[in-house]
Amino acid sequence: MEKLHAIDREYRHLERVIAALQWDQETYLPPRGVEERAEQLALLEGIAHRRLIEPETGKLLAEAGASAENPRGDESLPALERDFLRVMRRRYDRAVKLPPDFVTASARAEGLSQAAWAAARHNNDFAAFLPHLKTMIDIARTKAAYWGFGNGSQTLYDGLLDIYEPGMGEAEISVLFAALRDRLTALLKKIQGCAPPDTSFLQQTFPIEQQAAFNQKLMDYIGFDCRRGRLDASAHPFTTTLGPDDIRITTRYFPGNLLSGIFSVIHESGHALYEMGFPPELRGTCLADGASMAIHESQSRFWENVIGRSRPFWDGLFPLLRDSFPEQLAGVSAEHFYRAVNEVKPSLIRVDADEVSYSLHVILRFELEQQLIAGALEPEELPAAWREKTREYLGLEIETSSPRSDADGVLQDIHWSMGSFGYFPSYVLGNLYGLQFTRKLRQDIPEFENLAAAGNFASLHNWLKDTIYRWGCRLEPAELLRKITGEPLRAEPFLDYIETKYGALYHVDKGQNFCHG
Amino acid sequence: MEKLHAIDREYRHLERVIAALQWDQETYLPPRGVEERAEQLALLEGIAHRRLIEPETGKLLAEAGASAENPRGDESLPALERDFLRVMRRRYDRAVKLPPDFVTASARAEGLSQAAWAAARHNNDFAAFLPHLKTMIDIARTKAAYWGFGNGSQTLYDGLLDIYEPGMGEAEISVLFAALRDRLTALLKKIQGCAPPDTSFLQQTFPIEQQAAFNQKLMDYIGFDCRRGRLDASAHPFTTTLGPDDIRITTRYFPGNLLSGIFSVIHESGHALYEMGFPPELRGTCLADGASMAIHESQSRFWENVIGRSRPFWDGLFPLLRDSFPEQLAGVSAEHFYRAVNEVKPSLIRVDADEVSYSLHVILRFELEQQLIAGALEPEELPAAWREKTREYLGLEIETSSPRSDADGVLQDIHWSMGSFGYFPSYVLGNLYGLQFTRKLRQDIPEFENLAAAGNFASLHNWLKDTIYRWGCRLEPAELLRKITGEPLRAEPFLDYIETKYGALYHVDKGQNFCHG
Repeated sequence: MEKLHAIDREYRHLERVIAALQWDQETYLPPRGVEERAEQLALLEGIAHRRLIEPETGKLLAEAGASAENPRGDESLPALERDFLRVMRRRYDRAVKLPPDFVTASARAEGLSQAAWAAARHNNDFAAFLPHLKTMIDIARTKAAYWGFGNGSQTLYDGLLDIYEPGMGEAEISVLFAALRDRLTALLKKIQGCAPPDTSFLQQTFPIEQQAAFNQKLMDYIGFDCRRGRLDASAHPFTTTLGPDDIRITTRYFPGNLLSGIFSVIHESGHALYEMGFPPELRGTCLADGASMAIHESQSRFWENVIGRSRPFWDGLFPLLRDSFPEQLAGVSAEHFYRAVNEVKPSLIRVDADEVSYSLHVILRFELEQQLIAGALEPEELPAAWREKTREYLGLEIETSSPRSDADGVLQDIHWSMGSFGYFPSYVLGNLYGLQFTRKLRQDIPEFENLAAAGNFASLHNWLKDTIYRWGCRLEPAELLRKITGEPLRAEPFLDYIETKYGALYHVDKGQNFCHG
Repeated sequence: MEKLHAIDREYRHLERVIAALQWDQETYLPPRGVEERAEQLALLEGIAHRRLIEPETGKLLAEAGASAENPRGDESLPALERDFLRVMRRRYDRAVKLPPDFVTASARAEGLSQAAWAAARHNNDFAAFLPHLKTMIDIARTKAAYWGFGNGSQTLYDGLLDIYEPGMGEAEISVLFAALRDRLTALLKKIQGCAPPDTSFLQQTFPIEQQAAFNQKLMDYIGFDCRRGRLDASAHPFTTTLGPDDIRITTRYFPGNLLSGIFSVIHESGHALYEMGFPPELRGTCLADGASMAIHESQSRFWENVIGRSRPFWDGLFPLLRDSFPEQLAGVSAEHFYRAVNEVKPSLIRVDADEVSYSLHVILRFELEQQLIAGALEPEELPAAWREKTREYLGLEIETSSPRSDADGVLQDIHWSMGSFGYFPSYVLGNLYGLQFTRKLRQDIPEFENLAAAGNFASLHNWLKDTIYRWGCRLEPAELLRKITGEPLRAEPFLDYIETKYGALYHVDKGQNFCHG
């Protein structure tokens, strides 16, 4: 076991060195340094991969009794060690089943594909990206085939899903997403018939230096420990773990968009608090990790939306914000601000979407990538299929003659260009987990929203630690959910939350197609 | 040869990844992240070291005919490949001669020693550092003994010098430094009898944001290509190469000290321009490196002092500086500023020293470390010896009762705590190389100072590239100097420059003990 822990430690150190170099690439790397950085990363990824798949690892796992059938190994071992074995076994199997040549070739193809995607998006030129997209689909299918079926996977897409959401299958997602799609599109139509909130005060200039200064205060306010992490700016906001006491988030700033910077900080802080909150007994092991991509999203979206877009939160925080922008926010009240940050306004771009329409963007992508992997949709047909679903779910028309028809459509996200098929559902599954957790939170701490209004998050932090963070990735997502709520994954808690909140905000009577006031 | 190049490439990638993590540690690492970062660095250093000393490397070097006696290998190989072999052979020999256990134990002891030094400096407590200093001296002596004599080294100290300044011995340095010591102490005494320049305008507040903005302009002004590098702030200024197109410098800011930030930027830019200027044929090989520590210092000190503290340079740049600080610099002229930046005022601290007294700080350290390594001075006696030499060379008294008696004395520099004995001389040797190069420059481009006054550095950059940078580390320092100037290393060009410049500034008649006007 000690030797396995040493391998785990080395592998994670290397992973974190890679994370540090990637963080640097997104924040401070000089433009001309990109090429050399790619070589450094490729070298380190090779070293890390070889370290993991050394025959020694397989031998040590076998000696501990951890097989594919019984990944938790010898029953006489302590529970923590058995969970450790399960995660190591899973990681080892995933890595060892892919031939090294295939890994190298895929990495190279992904690099080319990402570059081609960036250029294609810039030039609104789907045709230029098409051959790379085909290669990425082939690679994803081949990868899933190497991993094989069984262990829950019944389709190639299931195999890909399993990377991000262990134990989750496309059949289960399809049922959940169908419910979401129906009720959310219905709600969206109703809201579009109602009067929108006044957001005119947001159409001003909010200087970046002042935004950055406010965001530092905001992190402190919600309990992000800056001795163990930091905030920087990057083109796309992200969270990355460089060590157990070095968890970094980024946001982005636009002088004309105050909300983008703020809500990215809250969202990424939700990820970071999770990473910072694993218990001491998991420290230094692979168990100090999120349970899954969607569980991670449940944390970021909980902070961003359930807390960060709530009225009590802004009752507490708005005075601080107004102090930072006294001219721009003169005459704006907390209630007024609360309404503005919850404006529902379908847009073509996923990352700009409000809480009501966000899931519809993801469902659209899920349905298309499912078909692509199954071979039921030709990549050539993708732009047309995208336009059709955009019309159907969001009520928006993409003019094919528009100079950004594909740039703001099928080319808007990086995921497929990196071969990350099966990733998108995590965003919405995160919403569902999050609202089931929130129900339990409300039972345990009925006054949590009042505490948020007073800027007091101590009991919330403790609840998250004792209930969710404590498990790290010891449990699979479904086990974790059941342990906490006693339930399987369900769409209703999220849908009820959305309908209640936005029904009240827009004076929509649930189930009836008219607005009050 | 191809395999050797592959080993070199991997080794250098790893070195640069280490440099990236160290850069991050000095600039942006959250305080609590230090511990994990140390583990990541130790792991990577181990991987890099093992990669280099693999038996394969020795075998490939032998196949190419590169032996300890004939490091440049087979005579039929192209000159570039033979130089490559020499550098690889040297690096391999240095690494392979140290037993892995010794390397690990030394690294651990250095870590402890540095931490103890930092605490001891903070508490002005030499006794607390003393046991670590003894260990560091032992390690240095052991290391030099492993490397062995021959190849020019006749003493243990020679062996240590060779790390930083290949081919240089303590005997040669002693002769050069004796000349410097005599003429510089004499000049210093004379200057101290003359009227100092007016520096009162520097005793104002220069906000850090404005300093940072000016320094960005300054880098651009002297030709630092920010697409291939960047400037950040750190506690101690440094330059580091993260890749051939990613060369980063740092400076430090004090609101009460305008000059510290500016001259660190010019100094570090000198290092960076060298690193950025290696020719394409050396790119991607270990030959794209400075010829030695002192040659590197010759470049940084040339920019900082010969260019950066010259009258023509400030004729060109001062208007820009005044624009950045219109209030603070109202009524100050370029001449006035030029005189202030060249104020000669001995201080206890090396890094704050002026051009005249700087070398004396280094000579003091050289003489003491020489004695420590030879066993001629007991570490216990070091503080007293330090005080005595400070009195003798700088005319300054360190009161033993002062609360910073050792903090501002023997504990001020980090070098010995890291075991870096033999490093200090590089700073002064850099001055000597630099002024010999400058003589050649003056022959080739007599008008280079007029060009600097006009902010036109193109021909200077080209001269440096064609004359110095082009060689990378293909030549040993002495060969490089002879190739460029036809001379061996000499103290006179530097001493003549100093005496002429400061004689004029302070109206000192060379060789006579009085001042004009």
